[in-house]
Amino acid sequence: MLSKLCDIYELYGFSRLESSAIETVDALGKFLPDTDRPNEGVFAWEEDDTWLALRYDLTAPLARVYAQFRNELSNPYRRYAMGPVWRNEKPGIGRYRQFYQCDADTVGSASIVADFEICSMLSEALEAIGIARNDYIVKVNNRKILNGIMEVSGLFDPMNLDYKLKERGIVLRAIDKLDRLGAENVSALLGKGRKDVSGDFTEGANLSNEQVTRVMSFINAKGNSEEKTVQNLEELVKGSFVGDEGVRELSQILELSEAQGYMSDRVSIDPSIVRGLGYYTGPVYEAELTFEVFDSSGSKQTFGSVAGGGRYDNLIKRFTGQEVPATGISIGVDRLVAALNAKRENNREPTGPVIVTVMDKDMLNLYQNIVSELRSANIKSEVYLGNPKNFGNQLKYADKRNSPIAIIVGSDEASKGIVQMKDLVLGSKISKNATLEEWKSQPAQKAVKRENLISEVNKILNRIKEP
Amino acid sequence: MLSKLCDIYELYGFSRLESSAIETVDALGKFLPDTDRPNEGVFAWEEDDTWLALRYDLTAPLARVYAQFRNELSNPYRRYAMGPVWRNEKPGIGRYRQFYQCDADTVGSASIVADFEICSMLSEALEAIGIARNDYIVKVNNRKILNGIMEVSGLFDPMNLDYKLKERGIVLRAIDKLDRLGAENVSALLGKGRKDVSGDFTEGANLSNEQVTRVMSFINAKGNSEEKTVQNLEELVKGSFVGDEGVRELSQILELSEAQGYMSDRVSIDPSIVRGLGYYTGPVYEAELTFEVFDSSGSKQTFGSVAGGGRYDNLIKRFTGQEVPATGISIGVDRLVAALNAKRENNREPTGPVIVTVMDKDMLNLYQNIVSELRSANIKSEVYLGNPKNFGNQLKYADKRNSPIAIIVGSDEASKGIVQMKDLVLGSKISKNATLEEWKSQPAQKAVKRENLISEVNKILNRIKEP
Repeated sequence: MLSKLCDIYELYGFSRLESSAIETVDALGKFLPDTDRPNEGVFAWEEDDTWLALRYDLTAPLARVYAQFRNELSNPYRRYAMGPVWRNEKPGIGRYRQFYQCDADTVGSASIVADFEICSMLSEALEAIGIARNDYIVKVNNRKILNGIMEVSGLFDPMNLDYKLKERGIVLRAIDKLDRLGAENVSALLGKGRKDVSGDFTEGANLSNEQVTRVMSFINAKGNSEEKTVQNLEELVKGSFVGDEGVRELSQILELSEAQGYMSDRVSIDPSIVRGLGYYTGPVYEAELTFEVFDSSGSKQTFGSVAGGGRYDNLIKRFTGQEVPATGISIGVDRLVAALNAKRENNREPTGPVIVTVMDKDMLNLYQNIVSELRSANIKSEVYLGNPKNFGNQLKYADKRNSPIAIIVGSDEASKGIVQMKDLVLGSKISKNATLEEWKSQPAQKAVKRENLISEVNKILNRIKEP
Repeated sequence: MLSKLCDIYELYGFSRLESSAIETVDALGKFLPDTDRPNEGVFAWEEDDTWLALRYDLTAPLARVYAQFRNELSNPYRRYAMGPVWRNEKPGIGRYRQFYQCDADTVGSASIVADFEICSMLSEALEAIGIARNDYIVKVNNRKILNGIMEVSGLFDPMNLDYKLKERGIVLRAIDKLDRLGAENVSALLGKGRKDVSGDFTEGANLSNEQVTRVMSFINAKGNSEEKTVQNLEELVKGSFVGDEGVRELSQILELSEAQGYMSDRVSIDPSIVRGLGYYTGPVYEAELTFEVFDSSGSKQTFGSVAGGGRYDNLIKRFTGQEVPATGISIGVDRLVAALNAKRENNREPTGPVIVTVMDKDMLNLYQNIVSELRSANIKSEVYLGNPKNFGNQLKYADKRNSPIAIIVGSDEASKGIVQMKDLVLGSKISKNATLEEWKSQPAQKAVKRENLISEVNKILNRIKEP
């Protein structure tokens, strides 16, 4: 899966950057995305009077590398990165202390085309790893429109960026929780605050009723067509320069997406997407998986967001002093793997290797010949390497490895130029629920000529792939 | 390259294991490969009263995972792993504090077939990533033979494993340095010791002259055929049970390798290979690159070892208490990448994306159509995303990205249904050293019909690939 993601990133002209997993706390601190969150939650230690930490994402190291090497890098600089990141937090379900991210960013381009490209690439990447169209959607919005709503509501002053900064932070995070909390609770958080089921009180943004209504109408601005949504947003930000700019940018992404065939089944405008991080400055995007799976308790659930990103034109400036526009995406690999596995669960393919069993220790070279032949035909396979005395253990091993086929050759078969092929998938089906007739018509074990080995193995593998 | 290595490992029936980069110092300590090296050289810190450290290799985490989950894992357990490891040492040329390893191990099989398989897989893996046959060799030896030599030399007592342990450690590390120090210096280290050019004295193993001669004759036991080498070794360990066993194991690998077509151009017996780590118990192997490259000072050098491994039947026992046979290989990815790059250097391919330049901002959809078409044909490509005003900057960008081709389309070309294709490789050759005739016969820029875009781009890409 990772290599398929990389292939798509490469196809789009991004080059891989491998950077250190360890950064100085100082360098990370300069880029900490959320200035209102304390510099904690990272694994850090002191080494020769310098505080070091494991990276908590791939964006901060990109900013550090770009700042350090910008004179040698191409401009724009297009890199992708893949690797583990670490958070020093209590782990929970779907929340790990070490997880994989797969990022792509374009640094040095202010063009909205760069943002469109990230959205289309995200769509291609999800399809490349086997997520069907209509099983996902890339949602797009623009932070400038939210700022426009804030401006016309008296919560944002383009001439004084610090004005009501704290309130706007609360609004941002409240909208970001819409999925989880629902509209009513988000409204409460925009107003006086909210008491959760445990009785804990979360302070609200203390907006007036009119302000709350405006922000909520922004969230609910999705119309029955993309064009209608843009029109609704245009209406809502009337009078705000920045809001107007946001609508124009969104229109440009809409236009490019329509022309390139991404609207609306792959990419779609969704005003409720704002992304929680404070550093985004323009387009924001999020990929959601829309298919349902059964969780361990048997109830249906959707996986939701597996990737997100946006434009962050001011982040690198914190280090270089110069404005450097940038936009990018981060795919949460572990969530994606979990989703794919859950989807595959109902319809599990035996993806293990073909096992060549050992009937006779003097025939090891023949067994090796067989796996060589299978591997040359690109079929995963191995000779059983445990103690071969107990044949039952060999079949148990094949079962544990989720193996589709066991190959059995004794001296008798060898002298006749045949091999016995045991179809383990069919065998397990038959032993569970076949009638006697089925059993007879579909023997799970059969002798095949040695020269037909590959074609017979492929027959079974192909049957398994198409249920 | 990494995905090609993984493909081969999968083909051989290994399954990927992703484990934590952070381990407890305690767990790492139990597996520290060299008991005579202090537990240092790792990045470690204290977290809630527990000392944590970044893994320094992928074998110790495997042992920890196997010990922890052995009841749930298949037996034998065949896993591969790929990822960064960390050493807290002074970095130097070719010596990094963070580097990538790509390991495959079979745990729970005492069969020599498992060792043969690792050697053949290593050979297939190197060829899969583009190292030609005869540009590498997988060298095999067996620790038991070295122990046999030690036994007949009075340096090893199978009934008292601690006897002369320190001396044997010195012998092991001295032989491991043969490549770097040469035979004379290794002899000195086996005897009284050695003063290096800086004047520092390294203590020797203090063997007698006769003992030194025996050990050196082991190192030099390679004959003019594989069979002759085995015969020489058999001769040298006569009288040692363990030595005899080592020779039998080596013969078995020889037999399998010959039958499967790996001898002697891909896998070869080399008695001078012992591997430095103390934990190996049987077969040891090392992959060496044999081609020469020019280093930055212009002098020829060979890259030497890029992978190594062997059988370590006692390592996991330290944790589980039970004997668990295991064998495996570790590929040093960074050295391999450096070697491949150095080899490619003389004959550098432009591996960057095709750049579609921006002549007219109103034609962005057309430019996007072109890259869509190129990507669908699996050709890396991108639209230039910087400020398009200065066309020279667009070509400079293409040059910096090592791009093979620039596509140029203005409104004139668009109306005629053509695109201009600039062959950047040919262009740079022509501008350097072409005659006027060549210039005329091979124009570096030409107009092609829009419908022939893919075939024309592929023509250039194919020409570049075959110099």
